[in-house]
Amino acid sequence: MTNGDFGLLSPVTASPAVAALTGDRAVIAAILDVEAAWAAVLEEAGLAPAGSAAVVAEAADPAAYDVAAISERAQGGGNPVIPLLGDLRARVRGLDADGVGAGKAVHTSLTSQDVLDSALMLLASRTITALLGDVKGTTTALATLAAHHAETLCVGRSLTQHALPYTFGLRAAEWFHGVAAAASRLAALELPVQFGGAAGTLASGSKLTTGSAETPFTLADSLAAKLGLAPAAAPWHTNRLAVTGLGDGLAALVDSFGKIAGDLLFLSRPEVGELGEPLAAGRGVSSAMPQKQNPVLSVLIRSAALQAPALASQLHLAAATFNDERPDGGWHTEWPALRQLLALALGAAGHLRELTEGLRVFPEAMRRNLGISGPLLLSEGVSAAVAPLLGEDGKQRLQAVVDQTLAAPAPQQADTYRKLLREAVPTGKLPDNELEALLDPASYLGEAAEISRRILAAYPDFTGSTMKGAPRG
Amino acid sequence: MTNGDFGLLSPVTASPAVAALTGDRAVIAAILDVEAAWAAVLEEAGLAPAGSAAVVAEAADPAAYDVAAISERAQGGGNPVIPLLGDLRARVRGLDADGVGAGKAVHTSLTSQDVLDSALMLLASRTITALLGDVKGTTTALATLAAHHAETLCVGRSLTQHALPYTFGLRAAEWFHGVAAAASRLAALELPVQFGGAAGTLASGSKLTTGSAETPFTLADSLAAKLGLAPAAAPWHTNRLAVTGLGDGLAALVDSFGKIAGDLLFLSRPEVGELGEPLAAGRGVSSAMPQKQNPVLSVLIRSAALQAPALASQLHLAAATFNDERPDGGWHTEWPALRQLLALALGAAGHLRELTEGLRVFPEAMRRNLGISGPLLLSEGVSAAVAPLLGEDGKQRLQAVVDQTLAAPAPQQADTYRKLLREAVPTGKLPDNELEALLDPASYLGEAAEISRRILAAYPDFTGSTMKGAPRG
Amino acid sequence: MTNGDFGLLSPVTASPAVAALTGDRAVIAAILDVEAAWAAVLEEAGLAPAGSAAVVAEAADPAAYDVAAISERAQGGGNPVIPLLGDLRARVRGLDADGVGAGKAVHTSLTSQDVLDSALMLLASRTITALLGDVKGTTTALATLAAHHAETLCVGRSLTQHALPYTFGLRAAEWFHGVAAAASRLAALELPVQFGGAAGTLASGSKLTTGSAETPFTLADSLAAKLGLAPAAAPWHTNRLAVTGLGDGLAALVDSFGKIAGDLLFLSRPEVGELGEPLAAGRGVSSAMPQKQNPVLSVLIRSAALQAPALASQLHLAAATFNDERPDGGWHTEWPALRQLLALALGAAGHLRELTEGLRVFPEAMRRNLGISGPLLLSEGVSAAVAPLLGEDGKQRLQAVVDQTLAAPAPQQADTYRKLLREAVPTGKLPDNELEALLDPASYLGEAAEISRRILAAYPDFTGSTMKGAPRG
Amino acid sequence: MTNGDFGLLSPVTASPAVAALTGDRAVIAAILDVEAAWAAVLEEAGLAPAGSAAVVAEAADPAAYDVAAISERAQGGGNPVIPLLGDLRARVRGLDADGVGAGKAVHTSLTSQDVLDSALMLLASRTITALLGDVKGTTTALATLAAHHAETLCVGRSLTQHALPYTFGLRAAEWFHGVAAAASRLAALELPVQFGGAAGTLASGSKLTTGSAETPFTLADSLAAKLGLAPAAAPWHTNRLAVTGLGDGLAALVDSFGKIAGDLLFLSRPEVGELGEPLAAGRGVSSAMPQKQNPVLSVLIRSAALQAPALASQLHLAAATFNDERPDGGWHTEWPALRQLLALALGAAGHLRELTEGLRVFPEAMRRNLGISGPLLLSEGVSAAVAPLLGEDGKQRLQAVVDQTLAAPAPQQADTYRKLLREAVPTGKLPDNELEALLDPASYLGEAAEISRRILAAYPDFTGSTMKGAPRG
Repeated sequence: MTNGDFGLLSPVTASPAVAALTGDRAVIAAILDVEAAWAAVLEEAGLAPAGSAAVVAEAADPAAYDVAAISERAQGGGNPVIPLLGDLRARVRGLDADGVGAGKAVHTSLTSQDVLDSALMLLASRTITALLGDVKGTTTALATLAAHHAETLCVGRSLTQHALPYTFGLRAAEWFHGVAAAASRLAALELPVQFGGAAGTLASGSKLTTGSAETPFTLADSLAAKLGLAPAAAPWHTNRLAVTGLGDGLAALVDSFGKIAGDLLFLSRPEVGELGEPLAAGRGVSSAMPQKQNPVLSVLIRSAALQAPALASQLHLAAATFNDERPDGGWHTEWPALRQLLALALGAAGHLRELTEGLRVFPEAMRRNLGISGPLLLSEGVSAAVAPLLGEDGKQRLQAVVDQTLAAPAPQQADTYRKLLREAVPTGKLPDNELEALLDPASYLGEAAEISRRILAAYPDFTGSTMKGAPRG
Repeated sequence: MTNGDFGLLSPVTASPAVAALTGDRAVIAAILDVEAAWAAVLEEAGLAPAGSAAVVAEAADPAAYDVAAISERAQGGGNPVIPLLGDLRARVRGLDADGVGAGKAVHTSLTSQDVLDSALMLLASRTITALLGDVKGTTTALATLAAHHAETLCVGRSLTQHALPYTFGLRAAEWFHGVAAAASRLAALELPVQFGGAAGTLASGSKLTTGSAETPFTLADSLAAKLGLAPAAAPWHTNRLAVTGLGDGLAALVDSFGKIAGDLLFLSRPEVGELGEPLAAGRGVSSAMPQKQNPVLSVLIRSAALQAPALASQLHLAAATFNDERPDGGWHTEWPALRQLLALALGAAGHLRELTEGLRVFPEAMRRNLGISGPLLLSEGVSAAVAPLLGEDGKQRLQAVVDQTLAAPAPQQADTYRKLLREAVPTGKLPDNELEALLDPASYLGEAAEISRRILAAYPDFTGSTMKGAPRG
Repeated sequence: MTNGDFGLLSPVTASPAVAALTGDRAVIAAILDVEAAWAAVLEEAGLAPAGSAAVVAEAADPAAYDVAAISERAQGGGNPVIPLLGDLRARVRGLDADGVGAGKAVHTSLTSQDVLDSALMLLASRTITALLGDVKGTTTALATLAAHHAETLCVGRSLTQHALPYTFGLRAAEWFHGVAAAASRLAALELPVQFGGAAGTLASGSKLTTGSAETPFTLADSLAAKLGLAPAAAPWHTNRLAVTGLGDGLAALVDSFGKIAGDLLFLSRPEVGELGEPLAAGRGVSSAMPQKQNPVLSVLIRSAALQAPALASQLHLAAATFNDERPDGGWHTEWPALRQLLALALGAAGHLRELTEGLRVFPEAMRRNLGISGPLLLSEGVSAAVAPLLGEDGKQRLQAVVDQTLAAPAPQQADTYRKLLREAVPTGKLPDNELEALLDPASYLGEAAEISRRILAAYPDFTGSTMKGAPRG
Repeated sequence: MTNGDFGLLSPVTASPAVAALTGDRAVIAAILDVEAAWAAVLEEAGLAPAGSAAVVAEAADPAAYDVAAISERAQGGGNPVIPLLGDLRARVRGLDADGVGAGKAVHTSLTSQDVLDSALMLLASRTITALLGDVKGTTTALATLAAHHAETLCVGRSLTQHALPYTFGLRAAEWFHGVAAAASRLAALELPVQFGGAAGTLASGSKLTTGSAETPFTLADSLAAKLGLAPAAAPWHTNRLAVTGLGDGLAALVDSFGKIAGDLLFLSRPEVGELGEPLAAGRGVSSAMPQKQNPVLSVLIRSAALQAPALASQLHLAAATFNDERPDGGWHTEWPALRQLLALALGAAGHLRELTEGLRVFPEAMRRNLGISGPLLLSEGVSAAVAPLLGEDGKQRLQAVVDQTLAAPAPQQADTYRKLLREAVPTGKLPDNELEALLDPASYLGEAAEISRRILAAYPDFTGSTMKGAPRG
């Protein structure tokens, strides 16, 4: 009987793919990777015995460690690096059959924070790579929808009410915009290596490199290069901008997912019916009601979007209370918040990709809903075009037409508006056909197409034209 | 190789005791307990076949279920009850050797939300019972410290500066006050059962009980009684006060822990030295510095206190967005937040008990620090007692003495104040011995002892006099 | 030109009624009330000169103080009591024409925290009184709707999809439930007086009462009685449960408002049309679109509900970091958060009252929307009633009917389901009229009426039967 | 009697300088500036009557508007632009003595959101300019401290305990690093103009520009240029990255302030005494205790740092719930959160500048505190240097020396360690003078100086060398 947690209460993150990149074992693996890379850096610099890096690398097999036991022992010193190091050193001793002294390459001149900060940046880097894969699946799907539905009429809504004619293509482009802009910012973030030693002075590293061609700074740069992280001009033990920036970036991306999910949840309601989640066996079932087809992808994505802001905030709170050269609790609150943000973003990204790649679009329902408000939707445009024909108080007279219309029962408002408007504007000033043209929603789409074009053009890496065949993450 | 999470990045909660009460398997167990209790309710009411409850109870062995697989399958319907039910039904069929039709007792007339809401309340109830055990260990220790150190002088501090003479006994009593008051409120919370059926109308339960002596309400009361939960006058599908109240109560308790930890972290600093965490093998070690003895219990408790507020807030956000008869994401955000709050409170409570039961107290250091400000600390009392002797502008003249004192170098301020004060007050109005009495910190403790007494008297259940020998939770 | 803030960016709170109870001047007034009440307590106890209370009371006219200047000067000592005291003392001196020595009654033995904590509790108490007036307006309106629409059919929705037949009466009762339960809890909160002196030892008060019949505790009780606050067994300088409990209570009430607003915002959409906000001149206008009628009351209430959780959380964070005998920043973060919560709750309560008292209800639209899913909504009930007639695999066969139905185009699903169901169940086992009865939504309302009755019965103070004619707050 | 709020309960922001840039009147001014700039854009494009821009500019005098009344009227439509527009139009009519038809230049083709989004970006831009002025005052002061104290020894602390020798210069450099890095990122943010029209399609603008040389996009670019904002490739009505990015940037800056304040609050405690806030009349007074000198600048800065994270989070929550083409409440929650973040950052920046420019530094106290742990602080370095001399188990033997030392009473540990160490290491392997050199804290500073140099070099704009004489903001 296994006792770990598998995301039972967090379905948006409960997938093997998410666990593989952000689970406890992935953290162990990242920590071991940092120690192994460091051993290699030291050996290459002539600061650890020849052959030791290979031993450490062999010892750094995450499958060899007992995650549960290490987690529990982490309470002793307050962080997981300490007990893991104990086990790593024991394994290195055991594997060092040739007695090269590989133990001297383990953790030398490092402190727990160096290892854990670097490991979490590594974890983030790997997760973001996968995340961007899913994101590009999503943006490609949205770009395709934007193009395909550039002329699909629907209604634009503000404060829940019908506002103006709109196109579904523009809506898809706006969704694309949100995701692509946030993802671009996330992709551009630098995830730096950490190396400062016990209290951020590099004292031990300085002694270690005395007399060699290296300095602690060159060692840090080598470590960064090996791990694929950004170099750091200086230790950032107490300046957590790298962490808060990462959290903010992830939250911003999940915000963009949440906006889409919120729209979907409305647009796929039975009363609206403009969109539908992809149909798939097992998706959306209910434990009680046979007929239910719940938009469960959107629900899960929205659940992530409602959780991410507080997690990003937790990282700022940690940064704001990072006292001394290492703080008395703030650092410890970063770890679960950062990891959970990574998991939420990755989990939600996968769901959103599935959702957008299989989105069902119902243009007829869009047209039907557009018809609910009918010509009233054009009243802004009518006012602009017609008021000048009516003289000084044209605007007021047209507003009176609208107000009178709104007093009628809802189902009769379309006809009422047409009739009252016709009465208010002499045919001599505006013939019937011109009035009708003004009331055609397709005539009042403004720059919808051009806005879409500009948005897609601004993010060429996300439109899919350059990434055909990219595999699902 | 096991892939679950064991709290590697959350050392404050990473213990088997916490996992046993709040881990994924504990959730599975609680869900199964709800289903088994329901089967018993139905059978007792004659609404399920005789013998079926026993079969369901046998099937409801949490060890028989694959937590990881259920977690993953929970994505399909968006909640863990649905896949778990599938497995439970299969097991019931398999175990129903006598063919009593036990399947008819499983989940009949329930919906996922009934089961999950009730199960989480059950989980909370069990966790709170254990939590209160640890809390009473803590409050007993604090009550003992309050009594023992009723006359141990120290300095009271406000906005980081020395304010007035104080006693360590009163400080311990204040800590007691915070914990006991919050724990009392938590202990008084009602944790209600949930039963509303698919959309909260009890439609299916109503059909089920038609013609029987029962109603859905009597069934719900029986279920509550079996689970040790509070009965509910009506379903609370969309009114989440029970959940937010629970979260608020847990957060308030953790607040009281955090206040203590924050004080400890300062008072045990080398420059202060008034208190020390208990010494224990493996506690407080560092990966780099051999001499470090970190106050790791306080650090972990503080890390919990910095995390709890956002989690309680998450529950309010869920409640505030609980749209429709079941919401489109809000409900899903309650589960991880509530569970994490329970884990944080329980983990931190265990650490705080260890901390307070073994707290090392150094009265000499308290006295030394009190001496830093010396007689200046008495200036409020001096002003009240002496100003009237000096006439109209007595207060101003005494403030001038203080101001002049503060212009002296810090180490000389005690002597300076004594000297200037003596000069300012004619001996005829205040003889030396009376002035010295005014400058004795022990003379200006106010109601410290009586306040402590009142606090302890207000929470008799928490002082330990009635709970001698209570085992460590 | 006035430079203060008037809620320009917070329309939900921007009303004179809210400002009168929670604005800066109301805070000044509450502080002055505390000082004046204290003077009266001291004089009555013979601890201040006869006649001094009257002078202080006269001086404590809030209109006489310059809020802007005091706010700015509050930066010096970090709290507003200090500069306000300076001005109060000056006014007392000026008004003390008879030279009774009224200055001796001002702030004697108090500290800033005593005054500010007590004043904020007083502010809260006054605001809650007004708040509960508006809340009872709302609950009365909802109770009336619940009764009036007990048989008004509509659809119950879960995860955005149609779930079961429902009544609008039950929906109104559920809304009532949320508000009444949270308001009851808020109304039951004790708002305690604060009196602890400079560092919570009552040292100065102890000296003051030496030789009199009073103790600091009796003085505190008298102060509480004068202010209408609850007495406190002991100072609560560092134990902030009174503050977090108040914040939690306010947040919970606003949660219940948010749930209603969220439902309203959906139910009043043009595509749904089941409800409408009251029509009123100037409400819901747009700066661009003549035809817009925005549900602005719901929007503003929802904006409050999205803000309250973080504010309540801020109070917990303060409590959790309340170090020393007075903390180094945490206390200062309580004030704006608590005040803003009071303002949000009061502002939103007024809007909700206006909304519920004038709510427009459209039963025909409810019926129309119920018809969208038609008989499919009854599939849970059909399954329970019909499956036993079909033998062992009855449930599976009925699920197959549902699944086949769902494969049809949405507009044809009602007819398809009826047809397929009829084919699946032999007429011999279930005649047409009995099948039709099963498909009647009114037949599957369960305990909707009884649940409503129970909810209203649980909160008799909120149903309006005892409060006819209560004026709008 | 004025009824506005002046920051009475928010002393960190309660200054005329903050109000001037972020108060309600500043918002009114920014809104009017947007409308006036738009009128100019239209007139220059030939889309509004000649002479109209001058009339609108004259009408756009913020002093002419009643902030309180507009705030209250903002409830009607839910935003302040609508009532302000009404008043602006009336003023324009009144001022249009020549009848140029200036009304046609007001708000034409705009929607409230265009104006308010642009106005808040303008407000942010102006506030950030002032903010960066104060920040550079701070960083200049810190850079000077870093240089001046490059060799001032102190102790480095981790998890509250003494860790390694450190320099105050490095600590100042680290503080510099935090502020300069966050400020650089904030300074680099693009604050875009908003122009999308009623629902983001630019429909009205498109009609307006038909037949002219302009397009809505060129008009938007002109508006951006006039306001000093960044151009926007497309409307960002529903994609709030510009807002969340701004909030994140402000929060990150305040984080860096909070880190410094937290350190200061510890380092200026009487028991520590390494630093002191600048002495200034009226700063740090207490209402009860004559001797108190509270570090009120640090307290206020810390109060800001504890509040900023939740506000940034509120902006993400808004972004994540930005449904439809304009949302039903989320947008409304952005305004107060963003404005409060600006005010907190600006208020705290002013305090931090005052604090750092006048910081009192006490190297002797630093040296005294360093001496508390004495040679034990060097144990990491000793272990690295000496263990190899002692053979295989050298590390263990040295750890035993440390452990034995820690068992001694604290005041004797320094001597004990020296003695035990000398006994453990044969003089032949390490003569006395070499051992003493190892125990000299100045010998174990690692790269402290080089790290400081690198940090300052990375932010040349913030070291003050290029900004001599920059006036206080």
